Amino acid sequence: MTTLIFGHQNPDTDAITSAMSWAEFQKQAGNTDVEAVALGEPNDETKFVLDHFKVQAPRVIKTAANETDTVMLVDHNEFQQSVADIEDVQIASVVDHHRIANFHTAAPLFYRAEPVGSTNTVIFELFQEHGYTISPTLAGLMASGLISDTLLLKSPTATDKDKKILPEMAKIAGIDLQSYGLAMLKAGTNLAAKSDMDIIEGDAKSFTMGGKSIRIGQVNTVDLDDIYARQDDLLNAMTKEAQAKGYDDFLLIATDILNSNSTGFAVGADRDKVAAAFNEKFDANARLSLPGVVSRKKQVVPPMQKVFEG
Amino acid sequence: MTTLIFGHQNPDTDAITSAMSWAEFQKQAGNTDVEAVALGEPNDETKFVLDHFKVQAPRVIKTAANETDTVMLVDHNEFQQSVADIEDVQIASVVDHHRIANFHTAAPLFYRAEPVGSTNTVIFELFQEHGYTISPTLAGLMASGLISDTLLLKSPTATDKDKKILPEMAKIAGIDLQSYGLAMLKAGTNLAAKSDMDIIEGDAKSFTMGGKSIRIGQVNTVDLDDIYARQDDLLNAMTKEAQAKGYDDFLLIATDILNSNSTGFAVGADRDKVAAAFNEKFDANARLSLPGVVSRKKQVVPPMQKVFEG
Repeated sequence: MTTLIFGHQNPDTDAITSAMSWAEFQKQAGNTDVEAVALGEPNDETKFVLDHFKVQAPRVIKTAANETDTVMLVDHNEFQQSVADIEDVQIASVVDHHRIANFHTAAPLFYRAEPVGSTNTVIFELFQEHGYTISPTLAGLMASGLISDTLLLKSPTATDKDKKILPEMAKIAGIDLQSYGLAMLKAGTNLAAKSDMDIIEGDAKSFTMGGKSIRIGQVNTVDLDDIYARQDDLLNAMTKEAQAKGYDDFLLIATDILNSNSTGFAVGADRDKVAAAFNEKFDANARLSLPGVVSRKKQVVPPMQKVFEG
Repeated sequence: MTTLIFGHQNPDTDAITSAMSWAEFQKQAGNTDVEAVALGEPNDETKFVLDHFKVQAPRVIKTAANETDTVMLVDHNEFQQSVADIEDVQIASVVDHHRIANFHTAAPLFYRAEPVGSTNTVIFELFQEHGYTISPTLAGLMASGLISDTLLLKSPTATDKDKKILPEMAKIAGIDLQSYGLAMLKAGTNLAAKSDMDIIEGDAKSFTMGGKSIRIGQVNTVDLDDIYARQDDLLNAMTKEAQAKGYDDFLLIATDILNSNSTGFAVGADRDKVAAAFNEKFDANARLSLPGVVSRKKQVVPPMQKVFEG
């Protein structure tokens, strides 16, 4: 049976492209019966990337056990972010750059995680260690994942290793980092084309903190006013979605990728705790000012976890 | 504050020596403020190893947060096998070769696991990748961890990688694998010097399976009759220990390291399930015949988990 390789639900560029790069790694390692798939359609940014490098979007799956007994996870490990029936298949490997939580296996596995900017950073190192070949197209896909996750290295999640590796990827890919990177990030911020649901849910992930079910979405923009103009509709959509899915709280982070600032919006029972996590208060417009915040993983989840579990 | 590095409770040779080899790796990586410690005294086998290579036993700690805020785990990840206050410190890295369960972090970390015979196998690879130096003494300690965990490569947990790496370690260490390996394994089987508690608890680990708290001990011997002669006393000690610690079941695996067979003994409410996991029944002497079984990780835990969670 073909081993399926996939990133998290609501896939972003790193989730989609790291599945592709890990599949290529497996093939060069002699494990040819693998397929990179995805747990959702590519977002606008990822579509730009796939179009640019003339690569087809991976097939979308809803469940895995109906077609395989073995999977490989990239760019995530928490089961609530993975395929619905993750508990029914064996996880052969994980390559990731997130915290580990709500994850377990029955058997030993290959697990490779590093606290770096993207999963593709880790996979690029693995290619180098093994002396495997990275084609210009694959290098471009990997660079795109790293650019996306680190906002072109501006995020605090970007490490020295990322800063060293991204130019190497770009060189193999034959792209100009600044022009390609900004075009790619801007392609993901066309809010006019997005429904309210796309905005709040497009990049959302679920977390369990102190027994609460917390949904955290993030949307990139080049102009926060585009978000403010739709704020009431977005808050309504978040309230409905929280009720429908049973989230205790729903936080949306709108990130200005040009100025590296964010504004937070929240619905749910624990808005005070959410605000306290950032030593802030919601202003008269129900907005939480988050200067310098661009990384959900590094600047949003840890302080919230501290307050919710403290 | 000094980062503490340690293996699991009831440390075996791989747990003790991988803490030492990972500490040396960290030092060569420029992270000099680290200390290899242990969650218990070395067993007889490990004492033989430390004596042979003239190395002091690592300091034993009971808690970590009283002296540091950061730890590195080797040869385990499950919190119930770790230091008592593991939830109060940050886990900077894990190097391991076990399944992942009951483990979580608040932040991204370095995690390196492979389904190979020992943690020292993974660490040896990391030394090679980085071009770091392995002294003869360190190579001997690492080889001892791999010999211990794979019963000199006889266990089904020994992979091709282990078979390739162990002779490389032995060459650097300047030891004859067969003579050193057998002497080392036999040093761990001096049952006459062990109390009943030493035998049942010396290498025991706790697992949660289907909501049950399961204790699984393992003892190596060159003659199973030495175990049978003390069977009643051992079962009594297991019953008392299970009551005192709240284990639902306690399984002891006595492994004949010369013939690669085991006999199982169990107390608790689920003896039928334990037997069913191996498609066996306890005989008239309350013994479970386990031909070919030598690996708790590969041949005991997975089938038990299947039955308890099925």
